[in-house]
Amino acid sequence: MRNIKVILQYEGTKYQGWQRQVNTGNTIQGKLEAILTTMCGRKVEVQGAGRTDAGVHALGQVANFHLETDKSPEEIMVYMNRYLPEDIAVIAAAEASQRFHSRLNATGKTYCYRVLNSATPHIFERRYVYMMPEELDLEAMEQAAKLFCGTHDFRAFTSNKKSKKSTIRTVDEIRIKKVGDEIRFTFQGNGFLYHMVRIMMGTLLEVGKHERDMSQVEYLLHAGRREDAGFLVPAMGLTLVEVRYS
Amino acid sequence: MRNIKVILQYEGTKYQGWQRQVNTGNTIQGKLEAILTTMCGRKVEVQGAGRTDAGVHALGQVANFHLETDKSPEEIMVYMNRYLPEDIAVIAAAEASQRFHSRLNATGKTYCYRVLNSATPHIFERRYVYMMPEELDLEAMEQAAKLFCGTHDFRAFTSNKKSKKSTIRTVDEIRIKKVGDEIRFTFQGNGFLYHMVRIMMGTLLEVGKHERDMSQVEYLLHAGRREDAGFLVPAMGLTLVEVRYS
Repeated sequence: MRNIKVILQYEGTKYQGWQRQVNTGNTIQGKLEAILTTMCGRKVEVQGAGRTDAGVHALGQVANFHLETDKSPEEIMVYMNRYLPEDIAVIAAAEASQRFHSRLNATGKTYCYRVLNSATPHIFERRYVYMMPEELDLEAMEQAAKLFCGTHDFRAFTSNKKSKKSTIRTVDEIRIKKVGDEIRFTFQGNGFLYHMVRIMMGTLLEVGKHERDMSQVEYLLHAGRREDAGFLVPAMGLTLVEVRYS
Repeated sequence: MRNIKVILQYEGTKYQGWQRQVNTGNTIQGKLEAILTTMCGRKVEVQGAGRTDAGVHALGQVANFHLETDKSPEEIMVYMNRYLPEDIAVIAAAEASQRFHSRLNATGKTYCYRVLNSATPHIFERRYVYMMPEELDLEAMEQAAKLFCGTHDFRAFTSNKKSKKSTIRTVDEIRIKKVGDEIRFTFQGNGFLYHMVRIMMGTLLEVGKHERDMSQVEYLLHAGRREDAGFLVPAMGLTLVEVRYS
């Protein structure tokens, strides 16, 4: 069986996230698997590097799947794009080694969260930004962002209470950039827990609004509970930008 | 009666254009008039600077309307944005002089046409670009674009056959800019005939594909008929960027 690696773009607005679910076909993984299963005449499973939540977008999601076909990676890409809905696209496809696994082999990910810091909606970007018109202290947010960087126990920054897996992660960098009336937060790390980027974002925005002192970030990273961390920002502002492999 | 001037943004995808129609409420003008009529308790008519076609977008459409209300322009804007659908927004509002008419007083307009020159779709921009993967000769298009500039009879570049009005217009500038795998065409002029930007665009793209010699542009501007000019490019790539007043 060949192993094919693809890079995907999608607008998450209409989907219940990446992961295939029993009771709904409306997931990115479900759409891809249905098309590949039809193409091959037998069941194909697709593994995604990031299990993006409902409403989260992707500029550079990576996935892989094993199948038997005469088609070249380019031809597989063209086939998939012909049958995919207009809000999902394959933008690259290549042969991968047998052992390549898009999620397990990923060594880093980049997410971007876009805040429209204005009371005036921006029609063309409305599906990709979270609108927050309140004044935000950029410098305070930048200082708080530095506290997140490094290797910490992020258990206060995940909504997943049941998992017994490690909640230790390394955040390499958080960049904050003002572009017109938009503020872009770029998160780089070796991996992120369920809802971790969105809860860090909510915490940063509360610091930016002076509703929370940045010293609390240090406390949260030591003895934190989810209830003490910031609000969960809406999914629409979040985009999986890139997945890295060593 | 006061005269209010507003600047509007909209995504045209779902609408049958700017202009109110008898048999459908699904026009930008219709949406605005319904909201203002409810606000004032009496019929309000909205005049738009550009009567954008079905599917055409606007970043800076200008409109004006006469009404009686105690609300400030800012309050009118907030009221309108509360009731407008998510694909239309008022981004500025101001008191105008009694005689101001958004269309009749306009001295210039800027339109932008976006071509995604790639075989790979761009999911986030898909509603705002026209996808044309064929190779395009940028230099040939730039030279042809220069021929359009100046004051000419553009009768070959309009779909409106019935009108007895003048078909003479002045195009001040056509800028062509490559941005990644996108080519942006910006048209500035004192006014544009029905479909004029989209037929000039189709003609330029045919020059870019070497399907048409640029010398034909000069011929079309002298003795042209619509049948001899280029194809009508799809509305989705077109955006009304700005309306100027002296």
